Amino acid sequence: MRPPITETGARGYALREVRRWRHGAVEVATDRVAEEVPVALLYNDAPHVVMMATPCDLDDFALGFSLSEAVIGQARELEGVSRHDLLEGIELRLRVPAARAAALDARRRNLTGRSGCGLCGAQVLEDALRQPPPVGDGPRITPAALQRALAELHERQPLNLATGATHAAAWARVDGELVLVREDVGRHNALDKLIGALARAGADLHGGFLVVTSRASYEMVQKAATLGVGLLAAISAPTALAIQLAETTGLTLVGFARREGHVVYSGPQRIVATAAEPVP
Amino acid sequence: MRPPITETGARGYALREVRRWRHGAVEVATDRVAEEVPVALLYNDAPHVVMMATPCDLDDFALGFSLSEAVIGQARELEGVSRHDLLEGIELRLRVPAARAAALDARRRNLTGRSGCGLCGAQVLEDALRQPPPVGDGPRITPAALQRALAELHERQPLNLATGATHAAAWARVDGELVLVREDVGRHNALDKLIGALARAGADLHGGFLVVTSRASYEMVQKAATLGVGLLAAISAPTALAIQLAETTGLTLVGFARREGHVVYSGPQRIVATAAEPVP
Repeated sequence: MRPPITETGARGYALREVRRWRHGAVEVATDRVAEEVPVALLYNDAPHVVMMATPCDLDDFALGFSLSEAVIGQARELEGVSRHDLLEGIELRLRVPAARAAALDARRRNLTGRSGCGLCGAQVLEDALRQPPPVGDGPRITPAALQRALAELHERQPLNLATGATHAAAWARVDGELVLVREDVGRHNALDKLIGALARAGADLHGGFLVVTSRASYEMVQKAATLGVGLLAAISAPTALAIQLAETTGLTLVGFARREGHVVYSGPQRIVATAAEPVP
Repeated sequence: MRPPITETGARGYALREVRRWRHGAVEVATDRVAEEVPVALLYNDAPHVVMMATPCDLDDFALGFSLSEAVIGQARELEGVSRHDLLEGIELRLRVPAARAAALDARRRNLTGRSGCGLCGAQVLEDALRQPPPVGDGPRITPAALQRALAELHERQPLNLATGATHAAAWARVDGELVLVREDVGRHNALDKLIGALARAGADLHGGFLVVTSRASYEMVQKAATLGVGLLAAISAPTALAIQLAETTGLTLVGFARREGHVVYSGPQRIVATAAEPVP
């Protein structure tokens, strides 16, 4: 199974006149800046969440968020998405089966007030730490495959190249070839867009690994594990709680993934010195 | 007015055994990883928000969040904070005047469900874009003062030095001398901790400027402008919406603030080639 290579569609940046100081001199110039827009998600007409996101690949985002936050369990359960551009931002109206909407309403009724950053809605501590099931066997990869994925990702971030403001999430085959990349001003959104794009392409999430240009925080591991992904490699550092969740779900967490090396924080059995099995 | 220089108190990191691959060889080593803990804020016993934060300087965080999210208008309105360490995370129980709690309840009643990342609770689009009042005159600084603040900040991030996982927010006098620094796994939290620490020290937020090691997203500008800060310098890029908010509140927004130069995205009048007035 190998989905087609696709990249972000809409441009995702705007032009702004700026004053650029450099070595003591100032010049007026035009700069490309990443777009950041409030995007509201509504499920079956019930408001659910507003995220600050880059307004491209929003169909991928709607599906990926719904899967990674366990609102739905299968891509086909997202029965429809309509986009409404308003003055204040963008509304994405999602249609899911009545049973899923009812379950979400029940989750909401447990929350008595407004909610917060970084946990997609947890407002009391009991809701904060949703434990995904074990991730299963997952892939075995070599350090060379990881290096290949990193090198390809470096070349495949057009929005970050233009703006310097965005994160990327990528999906690689076990040999390190990149299959899909998505970008966003938010690292969680980039991952959700990627997850949605992979689901639309029918990708097998047990037969590859994730690479992200950001740090590996708790929610990044939570989203990856919810999809059953076996290996998440982050270019920057993980947090202690992210490592703990990776350990309890059996996910391999790699941090500081760079040209000269990387650090394995959990599940080291999935990084092997040489590929013992033929690469599929 | 010059508050005393203080740094983060608690350690903020944990030790983990890792496998470090470097140039093809692997070794078992001990790594320092940043702590990330769910921190729930309750106002007058009503649950309000859960943030993923580094569990140090939480008194500063409680006060800074309350001010930057306009829950209270003055530091003295935070009448008490008690910390409760639970299995799932940390609860901070905050006491505010009854009128402030009632206003917060009314804000909450406008939200019918659970809420989201990056906007501290906005769940419908109308709540997302809270417009702070104009920031006032604010400081005039030279590029040299900005350079001095950047150089000092580079040396004043112990948690990031240990873990590579954290952001910092710093307050500088108009001559660039750093007064206070705070760190956190979340860039908003680092800024909130700094704002709280400044408020406790009685700092004049019109007489200096902010430097952050992160990008300048919408919420960073929103928090700075809410406190009336005139200038925010970010080491990385701003977003288009952050620039727009900076323009409408009159805040000077500097991005890509680095040794070789910087880019001014709004309010260029506050960056002057030479200090016209004596530095206070």
